[in-house]
Amino acid sequence: MTLHSNTPTTKGRLFLVPNTLDLGCVGGEGQQPAPDLRDVLPMGALNTAAGLKHWICENAKTTRAFLKRVGEITPLCAPLQELDLQVLPRPNKGGPNIGGKGKVNQSEELAAIQALLAPALQGHDVGLISEAGLPGVADPGAAVVLAAHRAGLTVVSLSGPSSLVLALAASGLYGQSFAFVGYLPTDPAARTQRIKELDQQSRRAHQTQIVIETPYRNQTLWDALIATLPADTPLSVSCGLTLPNGFSRTDTVARWRKQPLTLPSDIPAVFSWLAV
Amino acid sequence: MTLHSNTPTTKGRLFLVPNTLDLGCVGGEGQQPAPDLRDVLPMGALNTAAGLKHWICENAKTTRAFLKRVGEITPLCAPLQELDLQVLPRPNKGGPNIGGKGKVNQSEELAAIQALLAPALQGHDVGLISEAGLPGVADPGAAVVLAAHRAGLTVVSLSGPSSLVLALAASGLYGQSFAFVGYLPTDPAARTQRIKELDQQSRRAHQTQIVIETPYRNQTLWDALIATLPADTPLSVSCGLTLPNGFSRTDTVARWRKQPLTLPSDIPAVFSWLAV
Repeated sequence: MTLHSNTPTTKGRLFLVPNTLDLGCVGGEGQQPAPDLRDVLPMGALNTAAGLKHWICENAKTTRAFLKRVGEITPLCAPLQELDLQVLPRPNKGGPNIGGKGKVNQSEELAAIQALLAPALQGHDVGLISEAGLPGVADPGAAVVLAAHRAGLTVVSLSGPSSLVLALAASGLYGQSFAFVGYLPTDPAARTQRIKELDQQSRRAHQTQIVIETPYRNQTLWDALIATLPADTPLSVSCGLTLPNGFSRTDTVARWRKQPLTLPSDIPAVFSWLAV
Repeated sequence: MTLHSNTPTTKGRLFLVPNTLDLGCVGGEGQQPAPDLRDVLPMGALNTAAGLKHWICENAKTTRAFLKRVGEITPLCAPLQELDLQVLPRPNKGGPNIGGKGKVNQSEELAAIQALLAPALQGHDVGLISEAGLPGVADPGAAVVLAAHRAGLTVVSLSGPSSLVLALAASGLYGQSFAFVGYLPTDPAARTQRIKELDQQSRRAHQTQIVIETPYRNQTLWDALIATLPADTPLSVSCGLTLPNGFSRTDTVARWRKQPLTLPSDIPAVFSWLAV
């Protein structure tokens, strides 16, 4: 099995580099210091990251901060300021750049994405990184990966965490069939309607449903889930996964109604439930 | 935010310990040697694993082999033969022990699961590990986690890889909404029907569909996907993720029909597509 040989070795590879799950939660004023990256990322990923000179990222400033942390563990191949950091174009409103529906200027966007891969086409390995977890999973980056496949580049996922599946594991809910459906509508009536639709899908397909929310709306979403889902539904929340003050809790909606939970408004949370 | 304090400190915690994705693929006759665990697992997870004396696992032999590899990196808290390894009861036919439908002997099974948590109730931290990736995600273990929540134990997901989301990232397909639906039927007609249903769900919900198969049926499933899905569908396969000979490829079904792909029959693969 030597399928890699299909790709000319003169092209660079696209490495998908995992990030920590602590963005905005550590290292700031009044926050715990940023932990050692080795606590949450494998040395294999850190060593590969340290060897990459060309990067595609969501945000140059936070990526430099990440690479500074990498460099404290394993020497970078070049000084920070000499690394080539290209920033992803902002996605068109309503979703990611490719694979979404009803986008305008798709051809312009595609051209911009392809331009990001120029170093790889010239033979340099390139790293793709998002602000948290795996690029392209509940995060931008998929358009770059798809363009890399189209250009015949080798794409390599480096081992790392995703808050969605860490939350699913910690929920104890059904992990043989699950769906991540992103954010729910912010309008209360539309949100309630969407929760009901997802609950029907959960019941019909026997499928755990996983949703996320902007941290300052954690409590609003939690309250809506508790108000909307049937009383016997097991409902789980994981907050601040991999952080020292993180927690995962699962109980029935009926019991959550009796013992209200106050969620932090500044730490990411993942919510999941299974219709019974 | 000190929700952990809700749990009496006299109880042990349940740690969900990630495993590598290389089971059965390395270290055997004619295979590459097992790589350093640090290539794919964070030191944080390895250090926590090394400190655990009580374990719940799918298979005692492979878990001992895993812990031997851990001990080569960071000292175990006790000699291997003194570790307490309890094996999960085999799930009833048709699915996992809890959360599945139509199970018999559920109360017996629940009692067996609760018994596994006895060390935690006595104040000892316990590790839960599956044969690959995260416990409870496309793998057994969820019943133990759910029982831990019911018993008021603190559940901690340790950072680690899941082949499903690594494959999703490497696919370049839509990662803002995706469903993992497990295995497809082995009967050809039923499999075709199921692929069509999932494709309809992918189109209706704009949702990437992710499926897996027993390695010796990789090629059969791949051929069925190519024969059944519409020609313009982007279809991806990741094979041997994190392994030296692993690869991820995405192209349209039309192009896969023109350039047949031969998949290995002894290495796990993850398949995904998005209806367009």
